[in-house]
Amino acid sequence: MKIEIVTIGDELLIGQVVDTNSAWMGQKLNEAGFEVSRINSVSDTEDEILNILTETSSRADVVLITGGLGPTKDDITKVTMCKFFNTELVFSEEVFEDVKSLLKRYVPNINELNRAQALVPANCTVIRNPVGTAPVMWFDHEGTIFVSMPGVPSEMKHTMEYNIIPRLLERFKIGSIVHKTVLVHNIPEAVLAEMLEDFEETIPEYIKLAYLPAPGRIRLRFTGRGSDKAMLESKIEELVLGLQPIIGDNILAYDDVSTTEVIAKLFTDNKLTLASAESCTGGNIAHMITSLSGSSVYFRGSVVAYHNEVKQQVLGVKEEDLLENGAVSQPVVEQMAEGAKKIMGTDYAVSTSGIAGPDGGTDEKPVGTVWIAVSGPNKTVSQKFQFGNIRERNIIRSSEMAMVMLKNMVDKDLR
Amino acid sequence: MKIEIVTIGDELLIGQVVDTNSAWMGQKLNEAGFEVSRINSVSDTEDEILNILTETSSRADVVLITGGLGPTKDDITKVTMCKFFNTELVFSEEVFEDVKSLLKRYVPNINELNRAQALVPANCTVIRNPVGTAPVMWFDHEGTIFVSMPGVPSEMKHTMEYNIIPRLLERFKIGSIVHKTVLVHNIPEAVLAEMLEDFEETIPEYIKLAYLPAPGRIRLRFTGRGSDKAMLESKIEELVLGLQPIIGDNILAYDDVSTTEVIAKLFTDNKLTLASAESCTGGNIAHMITSLSGSSVYFRGSVVAYHNEVKQQVLGVKEEDLLENGAVSQPVVEQMAEGAKKIMGTDYAVSTSGIAGPDGGTDEKPVGTVWIAVSGPNKTVSQKFQFGNIRERNIIRSSEMAMVMLKNMVDKDLR
Repeated sequence: MKIEIVTIGDELLIGQVVDTNSAWMGQKLNEAGFEVSRINSVSDTEDEILNILTETSSRADVVLITGGLGPTKDDITKVTMCKFFNTELVFSEEVFEDVKSLLKRYVPNINELNRAQALVPANCTVIRNPVGTAPVMWFDHEGTIFVSMPGVPSEMKHTMEYNIIPRLLERFKIGSIVHKTVLVHNIPEAVLAEMLEDFEETIPEYIKLAYLPAPGRIRLRFTGRGSDKAMLESKIEELVLGLQPIIGDNILAYDDVSTTEVIAKLFTDNKLTLASAESCTGGNIAHMITSLSGSSVYFRGSVVAYHNEVKQQVLGVKEEDLLENGAVSQPVVEQMAEGAKKIMGTDYAVSTSGIAGPDGGTDEKPVGTVWIAVSGPNKTVSQKFQFGNIRERNIIRSSEMAMVMLKNMVDKDLR
Repeated sequence: MKIEIVTIGDELLIGQVVDTNSAWMGQKLNEAGFEVSRINSVSDTEDEILNILTETSSRADVVLITGGLGPTKDDITKVTMCKFFNTELVFSEEVFEDVKSLLKRYVPNINELNRAQALVPANCTVIRNPVGTAPVMWFDHEGTIFVSMPGVPSEMKHTMEYNIIPRLLERFKIGSIVHKTVLVHNIPEAVLAEMLEDFEETIPEYIKLAYLPAPGRIRLRFTGRGSDKAMLESKIEELVLGLQPIIGDNILAYDDVSTTEVIAKLFTDNKLTLASAESCTGGNIAHMITSLSGSSVYFRGSVVAYHNEVKQQVLGVKEEDLLENGAVSQPVVEQMAEGAKKIMGTDYAVSTSGIAGPDGGTDEKPVGTVWIAVSGPNKTVSQKFQFGNIRERNIIRSSEMAMVMLKNMVDKDLR
């Protein structure tokens, strides 16, 4: 069976908004055993919407549509769907009750536009949307299911999880799909591919291996499809075990997890505490860590020491070392980590100091030069890296590498 | 003329990777006056690639393809394109030289996989790619231009900016497109739409108004199309001026800028300095600020005080206030801002303390309760907010609202 996603909105085509909905939907559908065969982003004009409805109706069994359902005039999806399905809008008392009860917390008076949100195509099944004012509409049309959802991510996510995926599972009997991802760091893609050349010959037809590179790491993803889930799982498990002797310590995790999740588990399981002192990463390490709930168990805080005086006065970096070596240097980055560990009273601390760019580079320390330190109960280690010219990428790579260095030290300390 | 974007890769369809390339391409093409009519994400199987090539060749004048060009076995785009164009792969000495010179910085030996990257379809024009090993291929095929680019964002961006867009501009004469975005905060979409109902009647046919909601703010985007660029600009300027009496102080900026960019300009222009003290935002405010280059001019640093002891010992929050009122309280958040301002020696500081969720809420302080304070040269103000249940959203909304409160105080102080 084929599922297509259609996201509607000019803002996607002119790049004012990144389509994160499709990726989220793809992931959840996939976990449930469904396969998305295509993602289409189209303009919110009647012609384009009608075209994509016609095309997908001939290609797909299920078409999941997001966007174009808000209360404002640029949202024409609902009217266009009526045209496509040859039906008309009718007022739904039930939807209007939902809109009213949701809005009374925020706005004193319900207006005409809110009232219009309770208009729905006569031929659809309305799925109630408890987290937003736009209704979710389910259409059964000549063998294809069309579901129209709001584009607001939190509303789409809620309805997908609680309504759409359960209904699809009820409707379709599907084969199994098994994914397993291995997280590898610090090996370039072509080198890794060469290392795995013989290994890849041993992968059976029904299992696929994909290389997904990201700054500083590569995710190796195995995907198996078939009717026998247990067999797929055990075969993939066997393949994953076969990677260990080839890749060794460069395997960071055996899950599709972020480096931050690896750290979170390590610190929580071992009841350790962590702090950070950040210059070039500017708070990104703290932000990555605290984006995960439960981080307060092990993470005590961070000093973002952007200005040198903050490095001195808050973290206790020695003035002479700043003057002699500059902020981007081994003594400074090590004192930053040690200072953070001390003032926050933690077991470990990581620190970064570098030139994120695009300006600020010199011949001696070009843009992308980054010092990273980790200080633990036994010692402080530091390393210099030469990343590239792109600020955003340098911030991410520095943060990732700090986590990898931290993991290596904790692993050794625990041995 | 119609441009379509095709992004290739299973990782997009199963949601392991968010397609940020398309948004970036859409934005740059738009700035150059081109319009993207559709974005298609397809699986990296021969069938799917052949299908989308066939479909787009009948719909579009230009098809921009990214992904599926890496050195590993899961990348089959090049072979499939040969099949579609009925041609074969030939070895390009020129591309091989580029690959070698790029790789010698990173890897000691060029391997067979790298060598294979120099194979290109015989009928294409090769565009050299100085920032990566995958060549860029330009095909003129039965009235449609196909360009195949690597999926690595930095490589795609480089070739789009320096090669593809200039070539397209040379090839096509196009009409003008003018965009203008007004950033509005703190008015719900339906309320804003009602406020603008009469105003919208005055907008001419050739100008379109779109509402783009994001947590805590809405971007109003005017888009004008036509042959007379100056006329479009002046008409849109007139419309934007007409918004001021209706929306007033809730207009945060007259550009498609982030709240952070508004703050950056305000602080840099007025030679002011800033610090932050973050609990529930966990470093996100510092991260947002330092993501922009040039931020070191006004931003001195942040204390991410996740643990209460850090609030006390680094920021000087009084123990009795923590005990009496809890960390999520007015006295604590105000002392955090004042503490940050003091230890970093800045003109202003913002602080946040709240329950980001999903756990940690109580009857009295449910998840989403957030206190935000701003401390300036004259006073400290604070406000309590009740956001929702989603951690990620609460972190963003708190950060955004802290910036808005900061902007309001600085604006008043400067009057």
